[in-house]
Amino acid sequence: MNLQPDRRLLGIDFGGTKMAIGIGDADGRLLISERVPTLASRGARQALARALDLAQKLVTDTGGTLYAAGIASPGLVRDDGIDLAPNVPGWEELRLAEAVRDHLGISRVRVANDLNAAALAELHRGALRDADPGVVIGLGTGVAAAITVNGTVVPGRHGAAGEIAYAVTGPGWPTSAEPRLEADFSGRALDELAERLSLSGGAAGLCAAARSPGPARDALVARVDELARHVVTCCLLVDPQRLVLVGGVARDELVRELLTERLSRALPYRPEVVLSGFAQDAALLGSLTLAAQA
Amino acid sequence: MNLQPDRRLLGIDFGGTKMAIGIGDADGRLLISERVPTLASRGARQALARALDLAQKLVTDTGGTLYAAGIASPGLVRDDGIDLAPNVPGWEELRLAEAVRDHLGISRVRVANDLNAAALAELHRGALRDADPGVVIGLGTGVAAAITVNGTVVPGRHGAAGEIAYAVTGPGWPTSAEPRLEADFSGRALDELAERLSLSGGAAGLCAAARSPGPARDALVARVDELARHVVTCCLLVDPQRLVLVGGVARDELVRELLTERLSRALPYRPEVVLSGFAQDAALLGSLTLAAQA
Repeated sequence: MNLQPDRRLLGIDFGGTKMAIGIGDADGRLLISERVPTLASRGARQALARALDLAQKLVTDTGGTLYAAGIASPGLVRDDGIDLAPNVPGWEELRLAEAVRDHLGISRVRVANDLNAAALAELHRGALRDADPGVVIGLGTGVAAAITVNGTVVPGRHGAAGEIAYAVTGPGWPTSAEPRLEADFSGRALDELAERLSLSGGAAGLCAAARSPGPARDALVARVDELARHVVTCCLLVDPQRLVLVGGVARDELVRELLTERLSRALPYRPEVVLSGFAQDAALLGSLTLAAQA
Repeated sequence: MNLQPDRRLLGIDFGGTKMAIGIGDADGRLLISERVPTLASRGARQALARALDLAQKLVTDTGGTLYAAGIASPGLVRDDGIDLAPNVPGWEELRLAEAVRDHLGISRVRVANDLNAAALAELHRGALRDADPGVVIGLGTGVAAAITVNGTVVPGRHGAAGEIAYAVTGPGWPTSAEPRLEADFSGRALDELAERLSLSGGAAGLCAAARSPGPARDALVARVDELARHVVTCCLLVDPQRLVLVGGVARDELVRELLTERLSRALPYRPEVVLSGFAQDAALLGSLTLAAQA
């Protein structure tokens, strides 16, 4: 008779396009995971409700007792809401930790920004295990960054470190904080660019077309140029040993190649540029690490 | 009879325009200092020789025994030379620590980048004593930055953290690392801009003329815009509690006002922006802190 059933950890990575839910063992090792669309245009509440139902189902499937949860979300997660998360309507009003506590009946819940969670995973078991300082650049539905110094992820004063989506691009100066770089270079922005160029397949279609000379390549290169300027400034500021790229757009070889080439040209000291080894799971694995620390 | 004469510390801050030499007590408190022109166009060796002679004189003047020295220099100081210090011809070939050891007959010598030394002073006794994380932006003969996290100055992998002089500005992409931002916004760059606009008084004259509408103001605003873009990206990456401005150009009120206003507009979370309380002495005081730690 097993008097102490296995402790399970829950990790949830909420993204603007997809949500990943995973169950880990007591050490935060992923046992099972599932990925479902966020359906952002239908709003935040349905996404959260579906994620929690799926989490409950996976907990039941894997057996054991749910001990703690870690949640990764875009933006800046506070107890009473979320800032800087424009990609899912209504996301700002969610009380993520409270919802997870209430729905799943556990008290140990930790919440973090998704890129910071990804950086935590890189630091504990990924590309930043043996590199200091480290910079993580996330190119997914949105654009974000994270920095690691001395074995910890730097949260910043307001928990907003890494929100480079708000970098100022193009001519003129914004009258208020706008996610300009994100409007230039994110999965969503590249989807729109593909549509404008009458290319099918969204961002992936654009990147495929850009392999040959022509308007698609010119347009993508212009966008990478703008992104790269800001990544150069990030690298100059931190002088990282390694730069880790995560997210769907970063998995495109041409995007990585163009970005890396620009960093090589502009930086007096070049970090190693690597693609996260976690495929789509960096933030999910980070949320399990958070849960293990809860 | 005093058997143990007072321990003295020497600090030297080498700049592209001026050099400051200071003597401190055993705790690194400044007792006396002197500032002399670098005369950069005459080369690095004469500057170093004059600095060391003046240091020797000040040590003699203050009495006591020289115990250790700290040196702040632009660029990245290695044992056998200096990288990224283009403002004084020949500076790259200097072996600063060795020269100080040989000339002054002491073994305890520590060397640091000047902005990192300034950040150390802010952290130990200045504006960053009670703020974390912190960003220091140096606007002097050159342009540079430093970041402080958890009570330490982040050196970066190669000791090159903060070298934002190499940020990419303007159209096109450099073929190799160029100090483009520094070419846009530094005391030297503003001196040249003043000359081009037929204004007397160099950078200071330009800033004075820019108080009224006209070509001087338009030109200065365009330069601040470019600088501010990169400072915005630095602040987004680190989310500092406080941003400290140091250096001669930063002491101009209009420059600070324009920069602060742009940061306020573009940043979702605004750091406090303050002028260093150390007037011209931030890096010199940092070099004394280095000496105290040697």
